[in-house]
Amino acid sequence: MLNDRCLEKYKDFALILKDSVRQVITKELQAGFNIEIKQDKSFVTSLDKKIERTLSEKILETYPNHGVIGEEFGETNPDAEFVWTLDPIDGTEELVSGLPTYGTIIALLYQGEPVLGLIDHSAFDLTIVGAKGIGVSCNDKQVPKLGKPSEIPRLYIGSRHQFIRGKDESKLFEIVSAKYPNLRCFCTCYGFTSLIQGQADIGFEYNLKIWDLAAIEVLVKEVGGDFVKIGEQTLESGLKLYGAIFGKKELVKGLLDLVLLFKLQQ
Amino acid sequence: MLNDRCLEKYKDFALILKDSVRQVITKELQAGFNIEIKQDKSFVTSLDKKIERTLSEKILETYPNHGVIGEEFGETNPDAEFVWTLDPIDGTEELVSGLPTYGTIIALLYQGEPVLGLIDHSAFDLTIVGAKGIGVSCNDKQVPKLGKPSEIPRLYIGSRHQFIRGKDESKLFEIVSAKYPNLRCFCTCYGFTSLIQGQADIGFEYNLKIWDLAAIEVLVKEVGGDFVKIGEQTLESGLKLYGAIFGKKELVKGLLDLVLLFKLQQ
Repeated sequence: MLNDRCLEKYKDFALILKDSVRQVITKELQAGFNIEIKQDKSFVTSLDKKIERTLSEKILETYPNHGVIGEEFGETNPDAEFVWTLDPIDGTEELVSGLPTYGTIIALLYQGEPVLGLIDHSAFDLTIVGAKGIGVSCNDKQVPKLGKPSEIPRLYIGSRHQFIRGKDESKLFEIVSAKYPNLRCFCTCYGFTSLIQGQADIGFEYNLKIWDLAAIEVLVKEVGGDFVKIGEQTLESGLKLYGAIFGKKELVKGLLDLVLLFKLQQ
Repeated sequence: MLNDRCLEKYKDFALILKDSVRQVITKELQAGFNIEIKQDKSFVTSLDKKIERTLSEKILETYPNHGVIGEEFGETNPDAEFVWTLDPIDGTEELVSGLPTYGTIIALLYQGEPVLGLIDHSAFDLTIVGAKGIGVSCNDKQVPKLGKPSEIPRLYIGSRHQFIRGKDESKLFEIVSAKYPNLRCFCTCYGFTSLIQGQADIGFEYNLKIWDLAAIEVLVKEVGGDFVKIGEQTLESGLKLYGAIFGKKELVKGLLDLVLLFKLQQ
């Protein structure tokens, strides 16, 4: 059963998870870590793996009936009522190259639907956490509802690179950036963070996974924004990719129509 | 006359200027500041103006024979042998909306050529400073020369918005982002900072002004990179705009050819 009290409890637990992520990062950044390049040419480090293992163990020790879906080690009890999704380091490329915009994303699904999200930027000492019905906070301070769009709206968009995973749909990057030329592209969950705090007006991500997008889905709805999934596809490996348009309600519908029109014309 | 000793002296002076910028920012952020929207719809705050006035006064008090060219208050002695260029807040839109990626850019021109550059990010407590022949440092630590390009090179690019100042050349944004889809777009001098530190491989900016680009020209050359100006134009107001391609030598030529081809076909 899901209620506010139980979500408050899971939120506190998510913050404990965040503390253990910070401990691993501090220790490993001092000790140095190994870098590997994955089959899809993205980076993975020993740090990503250590964080995910730490989180996964803590979750299953505390809640043996819960499930875990992680970027690095796959699934445990994926059909459980409560399932945690983990992206230990979102922006491993940034971490490896020294950019501080990387982050950790944790979400909790209840019967498959995201109900809690946490995004932590250890390099900025910045944590966004929120859950369904109980709002969002940033470093313990309540995050206000999203305001009206800026006069020249700011789009936060994933890298053009994201639009050529599987088939090349980079035309979509062009169409969307033409509609919102005042764009920012951090290529990490720092974009989510900017959106939740009203620093961007609308966000567009494409070809991502559940552990990337589950947290922002809860968070953006909790600050009064919309979140719409688009472009679901299943790769040969069985991995599901999807995209999303999210942010200030006044803008989501218009961008969605633009993207759907493109998809129809394909 | 210009020599290393005199550049060391100006570098020390630039760091003193940076300290006074930080003092103004700290004070004004606490006190609150006014926001105006300029004719070109960009933002300017009372903070931008206070910083530029403070810097300009300090420079002309210390070096009465020097000139100053600033974003907010125009020129004083622009034909002097030594001229300082000032962008008090690069990324005023970020500052206003709460994003920490804004910065202050200071450069020194000798007979019209940039010989010293400083970029300061007060929110990150991060200062990049360097001068011709004496290298670049980041928070007092020597910045190493740029390494080889990444396997999937990272482009740092200005916002698509930059390509529609005056005539619409946003096709150029598309062509360049298609060549380097693994892009980052901070829309502030944080992009320069990422490039100098080797976190991006190549940078592309368009339709900017001398106070935006003079510092990065010195800094990137000092860490062993190339810097090539492109697309100079003079607006009716007499203001000169230009763009630049800069970064790791292995990549600059290829991107330059792509851009020149586009310009030829116009």
